[in-house]
Amino acid sequence: MGELRKDPILERWVIIASERSKRPGGFFKAPRITEKTDPDKCPFCPGHESMTPPEIFSLRDPKANTWKTRVIPNKYLALSLDNPFVKKGKGMYDMMTNFGAHEVLIETPFHEKEAKDQSKEEIITWLSVLQQRTEDLTKDQRFRHILIFKNKGKSAGASLSHPHHQIMATPITPKRVREELNGSFHYYKMKERCIFCDIINQEQSDGERIVYENEAYISFCPYASRFPYEIWILPKTHEIDFYAKSVKDTMPLLAELLKIVLQKLSAVLGDPDYNYIFHNSPNRIPRRDYWHTVKEDYHWHIELLPKLTTIAGFEWGTGFFINPLAPEDAAKELREVKI
Amino acid sequence: MGELRKDPILERWVIIASERSKRPGGFFKAPRITEKTDPDKCPFCPGHESMTPPEIFSLRDPKANTWKTRVIPNKYLALSLDNPFVKKGKGMYDMMTNFGAHEVLIETPFHEKEAKDQSKEEIITWLSVLQQRTEDLTKDQRFRHILIFKNKGKSAGASLSHPHHQIMATPITPKRVREELNGSFHYYKMKERCIFCDIINQEQSDGERIVYENEAYISFCPYASRFPYEIWILPKTHEIDFYAKSVKDTMPLLAELLKIVLQKLSAVLGDPDYNYIFHNSPNRIPRRDYWHTVKEDYHWHIELLPKLTTIAGFEWGTGFFINPLAPEDAAKELREVKI
Repeated sequence: MGELRKDPILERWVIIASERSKRPGGFFKAPRITEKTDPDKCPFCPGHESMTPPEIFSLRDPKANTWKTRVIPNKYLALSLDNPFVKKGKGMYDMMTNFGAHEVLIETPFHEKEAKDQSKEEIITWLSVLQQRTEDLTKDQRFRHILIFKNKGKSAGASLSHPHHQIMATPITPKRVREELNGSFHYYKMKERCIFCDIINQEQSDGERIVYENEAYISFCPYASRFPYEIWILPKTHEIDFYAKSVKDTMPLLAELLKIVLQKLSAVLGDPDYNYIFHNSPNRIPRRDYWHTVKEDYHWHIELLPKLTTIAGFEWGTGFFINPLAPEDAAKELREVKI
Repeated sequence: MGELRKDPILERWVIIASERSKRPGGFFKAPRITEKTDPDKCPFCPGHESMTPPEIFSLRDPKANTWKTRVIPNKYLALSLDNPFVKKGKGMYDMMTNFGAHEVLIETPFHEKEAKDQSKEEIITWLSVLQQRTEDLTKDQRFRHILIFKNKGKSAGASLSHPHHQIMATPITPKRVREELNGSFHYYKMKERCIFCDIINQEQSDGERIVYENEAYISFCPYASRFPYEIWILPKTHEIDFYAKSVKDTMPLLAELLKIVLQKLSAVLGDPDYNYIFHNSPNRIPRRDYWHTVKEDYHWHIELLPKLTTIAGFEWGTGFFINPLAPEDAAKELREVKI
């Protein structure tokens, strides 16, 4: 018998329906062949810098006479700083110009070197650059929120296979972020505790959903996982911002955990496509509508979503999810797999 | 220059980014080869009735000595009536048993006869059965909401290609439905008018997003379309329920419009995979938490979502969407295509 589980932060139920993994084509677990783009035509490869817009930032490697990590504006911009920020009505509808920042961080000069295969030092390098870019964009008071995410593989929305992250700064707090802030604020009002800190405590006490943890970070398959092998990564001590000093101080431990989690995922699923998203507090300077987001009710984290199932009519109609694999079973596999 | 548009009902912005349709692999418009399942092994084909759980309902065809339309429980149940309805806590988390109904409506005995290729009479037949099932399930006061949806094609989540719909009855009002009810109630409080009636009025006055309309129904690409060629279908006169008498009276016109819309979509996109969802008012009997949903603030409708783009990190992180095609351009193509 399956069960429904409620995400403790959002009004979102998940049907854990292990029965459904038996249906025809029900649950995808074979290795995914990620289509690699041709390195000769890859705008992210060294020597092809002229194929991208002028760079925003790069970290040079003096020994190798090239860059280690490079940040550029997204060539196919969804948002642009060149646009004036204008809001207006059109009949009964509301629109605004696509003002904002949309950057691409190229993790490595190596076309096929995915995060899981990079050294801890390489991961630390681009994590630090992501921090710097977030901190820098935060200074622009027109932005309400800065989103960092990674699309890995075609089915996860990546148009180029060369390892990269994206950074998007928006003049509005996105719906999903707002819901999470409201949910954690609601809990804080009730309990005077951070809900994420409580979740960490609950997970450590239950144990069965933990994937891996070290001194500073923990990873687990959340109780109401939307997807098979969904993994959340959180700092163990309360912190609202990814670019906070405490994160800088523990960066080697974050890099270590991220590498291990990605290696485990690959060992169990055979290099799957995935998205992961940094859930960070919104920009605190212009956040008049989020005055309550002080320092106690939010907790930055990463949500990793392997691309194994299909969003269908049920999910679109309800905002709920059907997950054919219990997170306890997924976590056990991930915990025990040899890497 | 692109723009951001806000869905008037939900707190959801969409980036209309025509630029992005130019990126590599950016926007899929080639014909989709929908994998057909083998008719010899199809549990939905006549003669294979023993492969499914015992039927709930069927309409017989006395001339052909078979059924016209058949309703069965979903074999791979996400929800089941056999389970007791129990809610309980587990540490800090909340769960409930997967009590509910999950039915499959097999539209036609013909394995490959998609809705667009069916006669108006055939479409009327299964639309009427969908109405009857909804009305019947509504009588069970344990249910808060009844969802009807169709997944067409593998990329839209269909595991069998034989044309079918699904019906799911849940003891809770889903998150997405709740948001829509809240949004339309909020508008009603402000204006004392139904927001959907106002949208129809706005669309008729603008004209540029209309796909097709007849005396009783209208179809258009919504102002803040999440996806290329997204289409909404609404009754022109205010009605909250799909199973209301006014819908029964105008069923031939709904069938006509649905057939034309699906034919147009196929003519423009080459038989694409899609989901469509009936957005119906929740069950009014046990809706104490929705006492305000009387008769004036909600309007039933269908949302049709062709499966052409990928949900990626940006969408997961923000709840916003990036749509590479302006709905005005999509509607023009759909309006003008020969069928």
